[in-house]
Amino acid sequence: MVRVLDITDPADPRLDDFRDLNSSDRRPDLPEGKGLVIAEGVLVAQRLLHSRFRATALLGVDRRLSELQDDLDAVDVPFYRTTADVMAAVVGFHLNRGVLAAAARPPALELDDVLAGARTVAVLEGVNDHENLGSMFRNAAGLGVDAVLFGGACADPLYRRAVRVSMGHVLRVPFASVPDWPRGLSRLRDRGFQLISLTPNPSAVPLAEAMTGDKVAVLLGAEGPGLTEHAMRATDIRARIPMAPGTDSLNVATAAAMAFYERVRV
Amino acid sequence: MVRVLDITDPADPRLDDFRDLNSSDRRPDLPEGKGLVIAEGVLVAQRLLHSRFRATALLGVDRRLSELQDDLDAVDVPFYRTTADVMAAVVGFHLNRGVLAAAARPPALELDDVLAGARTVAVLEGVNDHENLGSMFRNAAGLGVDAVLFGGACADPLYRRAVRVSMGHVLRVPFASVPDWPRGLSRLRDRGFQLISLTPNPSAVPLAEAMTGDKVAVLLGAEGPGLTEHAMRATDIRARIPMAPGTDSLNVATAAAMAFYERVRV
Repeated sequence: MVRVLDITDPADPRLDDFRDLNSSDRRPDLPEGKGLVIAEGVLVAQRLLHSRFRATALLGVDRRLSELQDDLDAVDVPFYRTTADVMAAVVGFHLNRGVLAAAARPPALELDDVLAGARTVAVLEGVNDHENLGSMFRNAAGLGVDAVLFGGACADPLYRRAVRVSMGHVLRVPFASVPDWPRGLSRLRDRGFQLISLTPNPSAVPLAEAMTGDKVAVLLGAEGPGLTEHAMRATDIRARIPMAPGTDSLNVATAAAMAFYERVRV
Repeated sequence: MVRVLDITDPADPRLDDFRDLNSSDRRPDLPEGKGLVIAEGVLVAQRLLHSRFRATALLGVDRRLSELQDDLDAVDVPFYRTTADVMAAVVGFHLNRGVLAAAARPPALELDDVLAGARTVAVLEGVNDHENLGSMFRNAAGLGVDAVLFGGACADPLYRRAVRVSMGHVLRVPFASVPDWPRGLSRLRDRGFQLISLTPNPSAVPLAEAMTGDKVAVLLGAEGPGLTEHAMRATDIRARIPMAPGTDSLNVATAAAMAFYERVRV
């Protein structure tokens, strides 16, 4: 049962987890990140409350408390109720969504655990843009992808902006790191995954022809540099999205969505 | 031949077209917008210089002038060369990309002209988010869509942010308004276009089954409200992207990309 606590002083130390969100250093440049996970808005807070993440506190206005009442019935957590002005003073900027939930980071999932039962996974290398990461998880959730895996040089999927852009789906779609990158991809092959590199290279096979496996892992690199040759060599096939002449690559989350869509389209 | 003019005073009236870009009212809420078109960065400026849009002036630092030299050979236009600090004082914020190009709006294209020879078009209703509009044009360009058409209640595709997010593709992909919305869709049907509404409704036909026409027009509404029933009734078939249970809709530009991808995948 949620405990509602009214707050009037922005300096109240009980709100420290929500303080100066823009400037708190959470190492968003590392896939494992650090610090608390922050969910913004009713929808994302709901997804947090029904996820493997354990909420530690919520901060919000009374109207949002009402909207979340059903979701908060089963959790033992404080809801710091206050005004929009106090919230703005605490977090350091004006927040349209009226509610924040904080959660501790659970232990990272093991690769073998997220692969068990999976049929479609995305494997990311060098994806260090939080919006792209967030969109990737939103698309993965919408199109039924079972897991997102991190190869080298990715950013923190649990950074606030990634959580927001994903609409909370980073809290639902399982993710894990591939150790010993890219050699660790052999653990996917051992489990029967077809490993597909997505590349704009015109000599690659069209995506629709390449994706023949019952279990598929699609590798995606950042916009611009793309996948490293090192990573592509560790895969079974290089595939491309048929692009119009004279255009550059699609956004990486959009390109990923084409691959995910191939798995569900019929 | 470009004329290079060195500027040291941010108050120089020759720079008025680039002044206070964040606050200048350009009616970005209307599809026809108003005011100048602003391209940011070398890549987008290049696309502007090679488009139907007529550049009136560029403002940038010396390094960007060098990078654009080949593209500027054929145009008779002033390049106001200055420092990053003067640029920031003029436009009202710090600009990472180092160059801006301004262009007048050419007369709107006629629907019949953009439809001539087209095989795949997107038709938008209520898409009033500039980032989504920009992404839509980027995806349309990348996947070979011939034109984007505006039904009711869309925003200005030539607003600065839409131009930037599209990576300049709003300057290349032809667009026009559908008059007398949605009745004017009959003009597409008269030309042999299959009219397909995209909807998250589970009772709709999967997209891959629905898209059977040689000429296809895909109708898309804004995230959240989606297409109006009024618009959907004016189409031939309602199609859906197969979504995972318990997830909401995809971003509208991503959903559009799935439909565009269906046209090029094999």
